[in-house]
Amino acid sequence: MADKSFEYLGGNLYRFTLKTEEHTQMIDITSRIEEIIKFSGVSAGLCVVDVPHTTAGVTVNENADPDVQKDMMKELDQIVPWENGYAHVEGNSAAHVKASLMGMSQTLVIRNQSLLLGTWQAVYFMEFDGSRERTVYVKLV
Amino acid sequence: MADKSFEYLGGNLYRFTLKTEEHTQMIDITSRIEEIIKFSGVSAGLCVVDVPHTTAGVTVNENADPDVQKDMMKELDQIVPWENGYAHVEGNSAAHVKASLMGMSQTLVIRNQSLLLGTWQAVYFMEFDGSRERTVYVKLV
Amino acid sequence: MADKSFEYLGGNLYRFTLKTEEHTQMIDITSRIEEIIKFSGVSAGLCVVDVPHTTAGVTVNENADPDVQKDMMKELDQIVPWENGYAHVEGNSAAHVKASLMGMSQTLVIRNQSLLLGTWQAVYFMEFDGSRERTVYVKLV
Repeated sequence: MADKSFEYLGGNLYRFTLKTEEHTQMIDITSRIEEIIKFSGVSAGLCVVDVPHTTAGVTVNENADPDVQKDMMKELDQIVPWENGYAHVEGNSAAHVKASLMGMSQTLVIRNQSLLLGTWQAVYFMEFDGSRERTVYVKLV
Repeated sequence: MADKSFEYLGGNLYRFTLKTEEHTQMIDITSRIEEIIKFSGVSAGLCVVDVPHTTAGVTVNENADPDVQKDMMKELDQIVPWENGYAHVEGNSAAHVKASLMGMSQTLVIRNQSLLLGTWQAVYFMEFDGSRERTVYVKLV
Repeated sequence: MADKSFEYLGGNLYRFTLKTEEHTQMIDITSRIEEIIKFSGVSAGLCVVDVPHTTAGVTVNENADPDVQKDMMKELDQIVPWENGYAHVEGNSAAHVKASLMGMSQTLVIRNQSLLLGTWQAVYFMEFDGSRERTVYVKLV
């Protein structure tokens, strides 16, 4: 890709967007974060990945077997059923609960100009009420 | 209010207290954090919101429709029932589990001397075993 | 102990290992983190505790009554049953879900060369698919 896939906002703060395709979906955003870290020149520090939404989250989990992602999303659906007598008229309260269960930000460590992740770890955007155009902020410290 | 609603502890660390009124309750603490950031003069960086309790947490979620808060608390009660054959004699194990599910700290981004939050996002203190006098720490970096 | 129980990796990044003994287990790692902070000489700032695994997490919770830990692990087992028709052939999808529910990192505050924790708070390594040799990273900022 000739162009950057992100926007620089100053103060080591970056933003990128993504389009989710499913109602619930895990999207691996590790390479997009790594691209930002490379661009920034930051070699050691912290990387905060933050989503400005209330029906989507961010987590770290396994990137090897795609079945893990399917199992996670299915299990979260069982833990927080989509229909459960919710009062919120928009009807997506389950998505709000799941977003808080996963968290709307993750703090990661940067080492050698790269994320310090385990062999099987990747960073996932967690869509709980798609499809939508979504935003991710990345702050480096 | 003429007086500050928080205490400065040095080293960009602040503390404030709040009184919860219900057994489980979400309290929007966004404006109290913003007041601290304004006072500090920090214009860009990180803001760690930290509760020193084990039966309360902190999360980010929707501030528009109060029904979302009701649905979240009701759903968390269904996921972690108050009575479930727990061994802990104090009888509030459900509150401990819920606190860990939400997390006892959140790391937020500061931009332009304000929290970088989405349109619908607010920061909530999550009481799971009230009513009590509670403490919140805010650390700016 | 004459020797340090951790390894220094440069850039205020530290690593230690631990051996879990049970399939699911909470291990108090507070003193090991405190030992690192003392060694580092950092008196105020942030401490990010990060596990590079996808079937283990890290949380903060009560250190007084061991029954709280038993209740937490039992309740998490009920919320995310070990057998539930998962697709992942390794058979440990429940551990992946629980790791994301707890989180794979926690950001703590350092004050007076010590973790800023409440009276009853301790930092726990959360094993969800042991027993295993595990790694914990501690990054100070």
